[in-house]
This record gives sequence, structure tokens and C-alpha cells, in this order.
Amino acid sequence: MRVLGVDPGLTRCGWGVIDGLPGRKAKLVAVGVVRTDPDLPLAQRLLQVADGLTAVLRECLPDAVAVERVFARNDVSTIMGTAQASGIAMMLAAQHGLPVATHTPSEVKAAVTGNGRADKAQVTLMITKILGLAQAPKPADAADGLALAVCHLWRGGPTALAAGQDTAYHADPLASVAGSAGAPTAAQTAWARAAAAARAQPKEWRVPAR
Amino acid sequence: MRVLGVDPGLTRCGWGVIDGLPGRKAKLVAVGVVRTDPDLPLAQRLLQVADGLTAVLRECLPDAVAVERVFARNDVSTIMGTAQASGIAMMLAAQHGLPVATHTPSEVKAAVTGNGRADKAQVTLMITKILGLAQAPKPADAADGLALAVCHLWRGGPTALAAGQDTAYHADPLASVAGSAGAPTAAQTAWARAAAAARAQPKEWRVPAR
Repeated sequence: MRVLGVDPGLTRCGWGVIDGLPGRKAKLVAVGVVRTDPDLPLAQRLLQVADGLTAVLRECLPDAVAVERVFARNDVSTIMGTAQASGIAMMLAAQHGLPVATHTPSEVKAAVTGNGRADKAQVTLMITKILGLAQAPKPADAADGLALAVCHLWRGGPTALAAGQDTAYHADPLASVAGSAGAPTAAQTAWARAAAAARAQPKEWRVPAR
Repeated sequence: MRVLGVDPGLTRCGWGVIDGLPGRKAKLVAVGVVRTDPDLPLAQRLLQVADGLTAVLRECLPDAVAVERVFARNDVSTIMGTAQASGIAMMLAAQHGLPVATHTPSEVKAAVTGNGRADKAQVTLMITKILGLAQAPKPADAADGLALAVCHLWRGGPTALAAGQDTAYHADPLASVAGSAGAPTAAQTAWARAAAAARAQPKEWRVPAR
């Protein structure tokens, strides 16, 4: 199963694509950041986000998309742009016929590090280990996109995908740190087998040109 | 000049299209509401908003799009969906090569009724008068889309469009109530003349099929 994780943002929208199946090591496919020009009108910037994510969807052909859930919080200066970018990411995934799940930042941190309040450096370190990378993924912002994808693969993947609904999250830090999804259900196993049979070999690491 | 006004929302996204030029009476082109199914996943609902607005853009061929500006406010239960719908509306306008402006609810109310704190019934009544309609536009939610379009036509139209930037608003309730944009500047006149020359006669009132 190939998962695209999106950390929505207006100035920098981080994304990461991984391949993985329950019980197997996840593998990096591509990672990057869609940047927009702060001097442009808002509508143009949102279009840049849409164009960038559309290119990723077409180039990487994910089976599912995970987007960070945005909350209304104290920092209202950036929340609207983040919400708008997340809405565009979710809409584009649906437009490409893909199931979409959302995960909160603490869910992602817990899944990847075992600690829901881990800092950015810890998340980047664990993502580097989990994916077996020789060095930390760059740009740094994109590590969050990968963390979302890993969280989704381990946490809510097949079951939530089949239902086509937002993913419910069930914490299981031990399984996350071990790099395993734990014992899959019969339905998950069947789903994974079908997905594996239908898919060609994972492509090598590549970053779509912007 | 043809303006599409969008009152963003996830459950009901009101829109209205009008034709008008500085100093002339504005004319209704089409009005409607894009509805989404609350039982569907969020990504699917956002796609329904995008599909509906795309149909309006392609059918009505506006020259500019005005979207209500969304603020972070107390009602957090709906603010995220509204922000996401507004982001999609703005992105689609940019995707169609159209200039986008945003106006606050109080700007729209002031422009249409002369009172920034007018209620929904007053806005609907004035929109009905301004556009010379035999009856109030239906569905009622769509009147807000028309009000946005009227506000944009009278307030920030040509100048802001030329700059391609978000529209600054300058209150002038007298001009709004009179149904006139006041004396146009030389630049506005020139712009309006060019736009009129380039455009065919306005189409009759029609509502694109959903």
C-alpha cells in the first residue's frame, strides 16, 4: 500500500509518500515541500498548493492520503491558511478517487515516537530510523508529511480505507516503535494481499520535479 | 462586467452571478446553492463544493470572483468547514484565471443596505430591489452570494481587478443604496468600456443544472 501524507500549510506544505504493508518495513518513495510565494494574492497561493499536490498525486500514484487534522486554536494568524490548504489537499485526494483520513498532530507523534508530545527533532529522528534512511529527510518540513504517512499506514490504514471514512485512532506506542502494525485482522490481511497482488513493485526513491 | 459572489459553506455554499457596469443597474444572471451531504466523509463533501462551483464558473463565465472573508470566531464547530470551502472557491477562481477579492460580512451588508449590521431579511429585501426582481431570490441562502457580487461590483471592482489583489473596501453607503457606483474614475471608465466591448450581451437568467 502506498500512502501520501500531507502536513498542510500555506507557506510550506510538507508531503511524503511511503510504501508499506502490515508487518513489513515501510519504504520511502518520495518527499518534498510545496512552497508558495507570500507576496502573491491568497487565491494564487492556494492554487500553487493545489498544483503542487496534484503533481505529487499524479507522479506518485498513492492508494490513500492522510492529512493532518487542523484545529481552531490560539494562533489565528495562520490557522485560516492552514485550514484552506488542508481542504484543498482533501478535495484533491477525493477528486483522484482516493480515500482520505485525518490524524491529529499528537496521534502522529505518538504513532512515530511513542510519545504524543514529542518535539520536531524526535519525530525527524524516528522517521529517519523507521524508513532506514542514511540521513534525515530534507527539507526538514517534509518529515512531518512522512510521519503522517507512517502513522496512517500503521494506525488506520486498510480498515478505514475500506470504509472511506475519517480514520479513528487507537494508540499502541509499542507497535509503532517496533515498526510493526501488530497482528492484522483477517480483513486487513485479505485487503493487504489483494492490494499487493494488484500493485507493481514499489518504485525507487524519487522526488517529482516542481 | 460579470461577477460571481460566493458565500462559502460546507453544508450550503451560496453563489450568485450578476452583470453590471459602473453607473448602470446590476442584472441577475444566475443564482443557486451548492449543497453537500452531511453523511459523506469531509473530503467527499469538499469535492462536491468544488464540482458545484466549477460548474458555475464554466457555465456563467464570470470576469471576477468575490468570496466572503472567513474569520476565526467563536463558532468553531463550523469555522473549519467554512474556511476549507472558501479556500476551494478562491483556488478554483485562480485556476480559471480570474481575479479574486474577499469582502467581510459587514462590508457586504453595508454595501447592500447601508447598514453593516443589517439582518438577513434586510439584505434579501435590498438585493431583490437592487436587481429589480419580481420576488426574493431563492433559495434564500443564495441571496448572500448575490450580495457579495453586488458589493464587489460597487466597491472594489475594476481597480482591484486590475491589480489582481484582495480588494480594499471603502464605505460609501449613500452610493450603495442609490444603486450607483458613483462617478467612475477615468481608469474605471476605460476598463469598463474595454470589458463591455469584449463581452457579448448578458445571458438571460438561468440556473446551471446540478
